[in-house]
Amino acid sequence: MKLRDIAQTLHCELRGSGDVEISGVAGIEEAESNQLTFVSNAKYIPKIRTTRAGAIILSPDAPSASIPSLLSSDPYTAFAKAIELFYKAPKPLPGVHPTATVSPGVFMGDNASIGANVVIGEGARLGKNCILYPNVTIYPFSEIGDDFVAHSNSVVREYCRIGDRVILQNGAVIGADGFGFAPQKNGGYYKIVQSGIVVLEDDVEIGAHTCVDRATVGETRIGRGTKLDNLVQIGHGSRVGEDTAMAAQSGLAGSTRVGNRVFLGGQVGAAGHLTIGDGVVAIAQTGIARSVEAGKMISGSPEMDFKLWKKVYLLMLTFPELVQTVKQLKKEVAELKQKLETS
Amino acid sequence: MKLRDIAQTLHCELRGSGDVEISGVAGIEEAESNQLTFVSNAKYIPKIRTTRAGAIILSPDAPSASIPSLLSSDPYTAFAKAIELFYKAPKPLPGVHPTATVSPGVFMGDNASIGANVVIGEGARLGKNCILYPNVTIYPFSEIGDDFVAHSNSVVREYCRIGDRVILQNGAVIGADGFGFAPQKNGGYYKIVQSGIVVLEDDVEIGAHTCVDRATVGETRIGRGTKLDNLVQIGHGSRVGEDTAMAAQSGLAGSTRVGNRVFLGGQVGAAGHLTIGDGVVAIAQTGIARSVEAGKMISGSPEMDFKLWKKVYLLMLTFPELVQTVKQLKKEVAELKQKLETS
Amino acid sequence: MKLRDIAQTLHCELRGSGDVEISGVAGIEEAESNQLTFVSNAKYIPKIRTTRAGAIILSPDAPSASIPSLLSSDPYTAFAKAIELFYKAPKPLPGVHPTATVSPGVFMGDNASIGANVVIGEGARLGKNCILYPNVTIYPFSEIGDDFVAHSNSVVREYCRIGDRVILQNGAVIGADGFGFAPQKNGGYYKIVQSGIVVLEDDVEIGAHTCVDRATVGETRIGRGTKLDNLVQIGHGSRVGEDTAMAAQSGLAGSTRVGNRVFLGGQVGAAGHLTIGDGVVAIAQTGIARSVEAGKMISGSPEMDFKLWKKVYLLMLTFPELVQTVKQLKKEVAELKQKLETS
Repeated sequence: MKLRDIAQTLHCELRGSGDVEISGVAGIEEAESNQLTFVSNAKYIPKIRTTRAGAIILSPDAPSASIPSLLSSDPYTAFAKAIELFYKAPKPLPGVHPTATVSPGVFMGDNASIGANVVIGEGARLGKNCILYPNVTIYPFSEIGDDFVAHSNSVVREYCRIGDRVILQNGAVIGADGFGFAPQKNGGYYKIVQSGIVVLEDDVEIGAHTCVDRATVGETRIGRGTKLDNLVQIGHGSRVGEDTAMAAQSGLAGSTRVGNRVFLGGQVGAAGHLTIGDGVVAIAQTGIARSVEAGKMISGSPEMDFKLWKKVYLLMLTFPELVQTVKQLKKEVAELKQKLETS
Repeated sequence: MKLRDIAQTLHCELRGSGDVEISGVAGIEEAESNQLTFVSNAKYIPKIRTTRAGAIILSPDAPSASIPSLLSSDPYTAFAKAIELFYKAPKPLPGVHPTATVSPGVFMGDNASIGANVVIGEGARLGKNCILYPNVTIYPFSEIGDDFVAHSNSVVREYCRIGDRVILQNGAVIGADGFGFAPQKNGGYYKIVQSGIVVLEDDVEIGAHTCVDRATVGETRIGRGTKLDNLVQIGHGSRVGEDTAMAAQSGLAGSTRVGNRVFLGGQVGAAGHLTIGDGVVAIAQTGIARSVEAGKMISGSPEMDFKLWKKVYLLMLTFPELVQTVKQLKKEVAELKQKLETS
Repeated sequence: MKLRDIAQTLHCELRGSGDVEISGVAGIEEAESNQLTFVSNAKYIPKIRTTRAGAIILSPDAPSASIPSLLSSDPYTAFAKAIELFYKAPKPLPGVHPTATVSPGVFMGDNASIGANVVIGEGARLGKNCILYPNVTIYPFSEIGDDFVAHSNSVVREYCRIGDRVILQNGAVIGADGFGFAPQKNGGYYKIVQSGIVVLEDDVEIGAHTCVDRATVGETRIGRGTKLDNLVQIGHGSRVGEDTAMAAQSGLAGSTRVGNRVFLGGQVGAAGHLTIGDGVVAIAQTGIARSVEAGKMISGSPEMDFKLWKKVYLLMLTFPELVQTVKQLKKEVAELKQKLETS
C-alpha cells in the first residue's frame, strides 16, 4: 500500500514522498523500511532520527523526521487505524457449531457465531452479531446486547445484563458469587446468598481472568466505555463509572464507587464502602483506604497526594542521614548546655 | 409476604406494623417502600432515618427507626436469611448431560447434576447431590464429598481430596503444579515433579480463578470452613486453618502455615516457610515477611504492629516538616556554638 | 526400594546402611521411617537430628545425620529425582477423544493425546507427543512445538508461536488482547487492534491463570527456560529473557524488558517501557518504577537498593522516637538561645 493512500485513508497530512510502499506497521525500534511507525510518547522522540522505518506518523509539533511522515493531531489513534489496514484477526463464521449446547428458550439475534462446546443456559437472550468462541458458558436468564464478543472460557452467570459492543477476553467471569459471609458466634461463617446481578453497560471491555462479582442484593455495575485489564477484581456491589480504566491486577473491595474517567494503575487496591471521584489517577500499587476527591492524583499505601508522596519518598532515602544529623545535634546541644552551665 | 410472617420465620422481634407487604430485600440506600433492608455496620446508622425502605432489620441497641423494624441480635445473619426468602438461583436438574464425558471407573453418589461438556477422569469419586456446571473438569482419581458445587471452568486435578459441602466458584483451580524448580549450575531450572495433593476440608469455598497448588510431596491443606475470595494464590505445601478468610488477590508462598480464624485483607502477601498464628488480622496490601504471633493486627510491607504502623504513617506525612526543623536546628546550634566561642 | 539402589540411581554417595527399605519421599517434618527426605535450605539443618525419616539426602558439608544418608552436591535436585522414582502422574493415552473438535487444516505430529472437548482451530500446527487435557482451546493458525503439555482450560490464541517442551498449567492464557486503547477527545477510548503475537521459547512453563498478552504490533516474548508462576500478568510487547522466574501475582506493564536469570518475587509489579537487567532480584511486593541495572537486589515501592531499603525500614520503626528527640532538641536550643541572650 502506497503511503499516499494511507495518508488519505487516515486523513493525515503527507510530508515527503507518498510513493513509499508500506506493507505493515511496527514499533519505532523494530520497524523496517517497508513499515510504518509512530511517535506519541515524548520519551520516544529521540528515536525519530534513528528509526529504520519507511515512514512515521507524527504530531505536527514533533521534530520533523528525515523519512516520509504522516502528520496527525492524534498520532496514537492514527496508528491504531493504520494497524487495521494491515491486520484482521481470523473471524469465526456465523452459525451454531454442532457441539454447542443451546438450551430451550434461548433467544439469539441474527448472524450469531456460536463456537464449539459453547453452552447457553435456558432463557438467555443474545443480540445480533454475537461471537462466542469455543468453551464459553452463558448461564440461564442472562441478557446480552448486540455485537457481543466472548473469548474462550469466559463466563456470564445467571441473570446478568450486558449492553451492546461488550468484549470479554479469555476467562473473564461476570457474576460469580460475591465474597459474602456473616460471621457466626461459633467462629464460623454463614454464606449469604448473592441474589444481585452484574450490569455491564455498552462498550465495556473486560480483560482475561478478570472477575466482576454479582451483588448481594441489587447490582454491581461497570459504566459505559470502561475498560478493565487482566486479573482485575471487582467486589460485589461496586459501581464503576464511564470511560474509566483499571490496569492489571488492580481490585475494588465491595460497595466501592468509582467515578468517570478514573485511572487506577496496576496492582492498585481500594477498600470497601468508599467513593473515588471523577478523574482520579492512582499510581501503580496505591492502596486506597479512604474516599478520594475528584481530580486528585494519588500514590502510596495508604494513599496520599501524589506530590506529597513523592516528596516523602525522596526524603525517606535521606533518612539514615537525618538520623545521623539528629544524633550529632543532640551531642552538640548537650555540650553547649554544659559549656553554658560551667561558663 | 407480610412483615409479620418474615419476623416469625427469622425469629426476630417485630416493632411497628406487621402488615407491611414486603416483596424483596435491598441495601439501605437502594431499598424502596416494598423492600426490607438492614443495618449492621455502624457507618450506616445515620441512614436509618433517611432510608426509603418499607422495613428494616436492626440490632436492639441501634437507634430506633420510624419504619417497622425487625430486631435481631445479629442483623447481618438475619438479613442473609431474609434474602433466601425472596431469591433462589436457577438450579440445574439432576442427571448427566449427554455431552458430558464420564470416564470408566467413576463413582457418583445419588442425585448428581452433571452439566454440558463436563469431563470426569477415570477413577474419580463424587458424593451425593453434587452439581457440576458446564465445562467443569475433574481429573482422574480425585475424591470429592457430598453436596459439592463446582461452577463452570473450575478444575480439580488428579488425586486431590475434597470434603463435604465445598463450593468452587468459576475457574477455581485445585491442584495445579506448585512452582517448584531446582536451580542448576548452568543457570537453568530442573522441574520438580509435584507429587503431592490438595486437601479441601468440609465447608470450604474457593473464589473465582483462585489457585490452590498441589504440594511437592505431602499435601496443601485448606481447613474446615475457610473461605478464599477471587484470584487468591495458595503456594504448594501451605496449610490454612479453619474458619479463616482471605480476601481477593491475596497470596501465600509455599510451605506457609496460617492458623484458625485469621483474616488476610485484599492483596496481602505472605512469604514462604513462616507461621501466621490464630486470629491474626492483616490489613489490605500487608507484606508478611516473618512469622506472626496469634492475635496480632498487622499492616505495612514488611508487616509491623498495626498501631505502630499507623503512628509511623501519620508521622511520615510530617516528614518534610521534620526535615526543615532539623535543618533549622542545625543552623541555630552552629550559631550558638560560634556565639559561645566568641563570647 | 532399597536405599542402596536409590543411591546408585541418583549417583549419590551412601553413608550408613543401604538396606533400608524406602517406599516414598516426604518433607523433613512429615517423613516417616519408610520415607526419604532431604535438607538443602539451611533453615532446616537443625531438623536433621529430629526427623523421623528413614533416610536423608544431604550436602557433604552439612552436619552428619544419625540416619542413613545420601550425599549429593545438589540435594535439592537429587530429591527432585528421587520423587520421580516413586510418583507418576496419570498420563492420558495417545489419540483424539471423540468429543474433541479438530478443525480442517490442523497439523498434528505423532503420538498426540487430545482430550475431551478440546478445540483446535483451523490451520493450527502441533508438534509430536503433545498432550492437550480436556477443555483446552487452541485458536487458529497458532504454531506449537514438540512435547507440549496444556492443562484444562488453557488457551493459545491466534497466530501465537510456542517452542518445544512448553507446559501450560490450568487456565493459562497465551495471547489475549493487550490493554491498548487510544484516549479520545470526548473522554472515551478507541480500541487498538492487537495485531502482534506471543512467542514462548523452548522449556517455558506458564502457571495457572497467568496471562501473557499479545503485542499491539510485533511480539511479546518469553525466553527459553523461563518459568512464570500462577496469576502473573505479562503486558503487551514485553520481553522476558532466559531462565528468569516470576513468582505468583507479579506483573509487567507493557513494553517492559526483563533480562536473563532475573527473579521477581510474589506481587512484584513493574511499570511499562523500562529495562530490568540480567540477574536482578526483586523482593516480594517491590514496585519497579524505573529501569534497574544488572545484578541489583531491590525492594520497596518504588524500588530502591535492598540494603538501603532495609536500613530505611528499620529506622522508620524508630520514627516516633526521632520525632520526640527533635521536639526535645528544639526546646533545648530555644532555652540555650534565651540563656545566651540574657547572659
